[in-house]
Amino acid sequence: MIETPYLLFLGDAPDQLAAKVAQGIKDWRPENAVGQFRMEGCKADLGLTDMDLVEAREAGAKTLVIGVANRGGVISQDWKKVLVMALEEGFDLASGLHNLLRDEPDLVAVAEACGRKLHDVRIPSVKYPIANGVKRKGKRCLAVGTDCSVGKMYTALAMDAEMRERGMKSTFRATGQTGILITGDGVPLDAVIADFMAGSIEWLTPDNDEDHWDLIEGQGSLFHVSYSGVTLALVHGGQPDALVLCHEPTRAHMRGLPGYQLPSLEAVRDTALALAKVGNPDCQVIGVSVNTQHMGEEEARAYLAKVEADMGLPATDPFRFGAGKLVDALAAV
Amino acid sequence: MIETPYLLFLGDAPDQLAAKVAQGIKDWRPENAVGQFRMEGCKADLGLTDMDLVEAREAGAKTLVIGVANRGGVISQDWKKVLVMALEEGFDLASGLHNLLRDEPDLVAVAEACGRKLHDVRIPSVKYPIANGVKRKGKRCLAVGTDCSVGKMYTALAMDAEMRERGMKSTFRATGQTGILITGDGVPLDAVIADFMAGSIEWLTPDNDEDHWDLIEGQGSLFHVSYSGVTLALVHGGQPDALVLCHEPTRAHMRGLPGYQLPSLEAVRDTALALAKVGNPDCQVIGVSVNTQHMGEEEARAYLAKVEADMGLPATDPFRFGAGKLVDALAAV
Repeated sequence: MIETPYLLFLGDAPDQLAAKVAQGIKDWRPENAVGQFRMEGCKADLGLTDMDLVEAREAGAKTLVIGVANRGGVISQDWKKVLVMALEEGFDLASGLHNLLRDEPDLVAVAEACGRKLHDVRIPSVKYPIANGVKRKGKRCLAVGTDCSVGKMYTALAMDAEMRERGMKSTFRATGQTGILITGDGVPLDAVIADFMAGSIEWLTPDNDEDHWDLIEGQGSLFHVSYSGVTLALVHGGQPDALVLCHEPTRAHMRGLPGYQLPSLEAVRDTALALAKVGNPDCQVIGVSVNTQHMGEEEARAYLAKVEADMGLPATDPFRFGAGKLVDALAAV
Repeated sequence: MIETPYLLFLGDAPDQLAAKVAQGIKDWRPENAVGQFRMEGCKADLGLTDMDLVEAREAGAKTLVIGVANRGGVISQDWKKVLVMALEEGFDLASGLHNLLRDEPDLVAVAEACGRKLHDVRIPSVKYPIANGVKRKGKRCLAVGTDCSVGKMYTALAMDAEMRERGMKSTFRATGQTGILITGDGVPLDAVIADFMAGSIEWLTPDNDEDHWDLIEGQGSLFHVSYSGVTLALVHGGQPDALVLCHEPTRAHMRGLPGYQLPSLEAVRDTALALAKVGNPDCQVIGVSVNTQHMGEEEARAYLAKVEADMGLPATDPFRFGAGKLVDALAAV
């Protein structure tokens, strides 16, 4: 568990897109972001107050989160100067970079000397159990996709936000590095040992109030041959009561797999639901979330209307048109 | 890759069953087993020549394989005396125990001093790639089960043996610790990091002759909520041309999951085939392997006849009645 709130480190981001982790934190957990730290030449700006380390500490920040992608996959010497000072100033550090903080001996030494923590959210920090399949109390909703990176995290976060606004009981459950940094905890599922995948999701979504919903971040796709096993562990470990189908209609092929076409929404619905019923016979598909970012507004609305007619399910782009329809459907379960 | 042939270490096995890894090696790769090493009080006997370390070295053994389960989960001091002597005598050590050889500082020190290797086959020793889904040459057959431990490894080994006898090109591909010790290599799939599961199976079953068959050892079940993700990684990473359904008809519930009924063979056929076709549209289900060990002979034959009639597929118990029918079906693919 990462201590909040955060100071968001944007480093020397070459553009706004490089800071998308920080952007996610600011968008979804603004209360976690007291300010931003930008180095000389930084081309990203979240519109948060620029702070130095002392100001951020005074504003209550506990952890400096690396909210930016690093260039060339390494933690540069320029970054390190800031990171070392942050540790000395009393911050923990959190990062989702492939270049682990713990693999940098100088950071480890300073962290130890200062009694601070280094959080590498790509690496599990918990010894997860083997899944036992026992029915848990409370309700769970899982986003399943036609492909990777079609908006599953965004869908779960948007539904969670809408549910909180309505006063419903809900918790977003992160299963990837960005989600973990946004909320401060979760399971980095792609880095979990095979035998413990489903168990890690049971651990992440324990017994809860009968009227509480876990919104579980999906990963991969049952139809993506590189990662489908990770997805099935979510379907079975998550024991979902509700599935939301996620889709991006303009993709020419499965992400990273030029020879593979995307499955139809119907195929994902039927396959995911049949498998989910093994773990929860009452599971149902409640709606469709479409990422329409590459479509004009009229085209997007027409596409959503067609999906609703074809599938007999509510369909929306939660970013563009709100998550209300999906939450209405969930409330009716 | 573990150097063969082996001296099979039976230790102080309390009974024959405790030596089942050694039994598997002797049954399936007798050419790998030059002899057995038994300590005082050993109650297991494979019918191999009893040898001391010097005799085994002279007979050509390269690796001492721990072919017996340890009591209490620890490597005892009595065992260690033998293991240390074996290293000094020039043997590598191989083990599938939970208590890793590499976690024993004295064994590590002696192995280093003697220039010998410690193989813990529960732990991957390869950095596997992410699966790329590219179609590979050669043919692959995967055993998929209604449950865990229904005879998937045995089925693949029996088919492989029958195919070699017929002069067909085949290779058994181990995905679990016992299979790895039997053949000397493979992927310990349950210990692979989630993101690399399917890639590890692509790595295990590379391009081959067009008329060569990989017989891939199955793991878990698509219907076993604890391990289904591992199974799906095999279905997609293995890119199978042929599936063999494996079943044990007398089970009251899924292994380790008292609340879960076994799926029907029809359900496994339909689910596994639909998912396998994502990676290989030409995949087909070619037969059924039934573990009839808890049935009388007449009952077993009647059950197999009923499966054949119901499913329209050849069905056999390869241990009891031979793998011929399954290999006939494979040859017809």
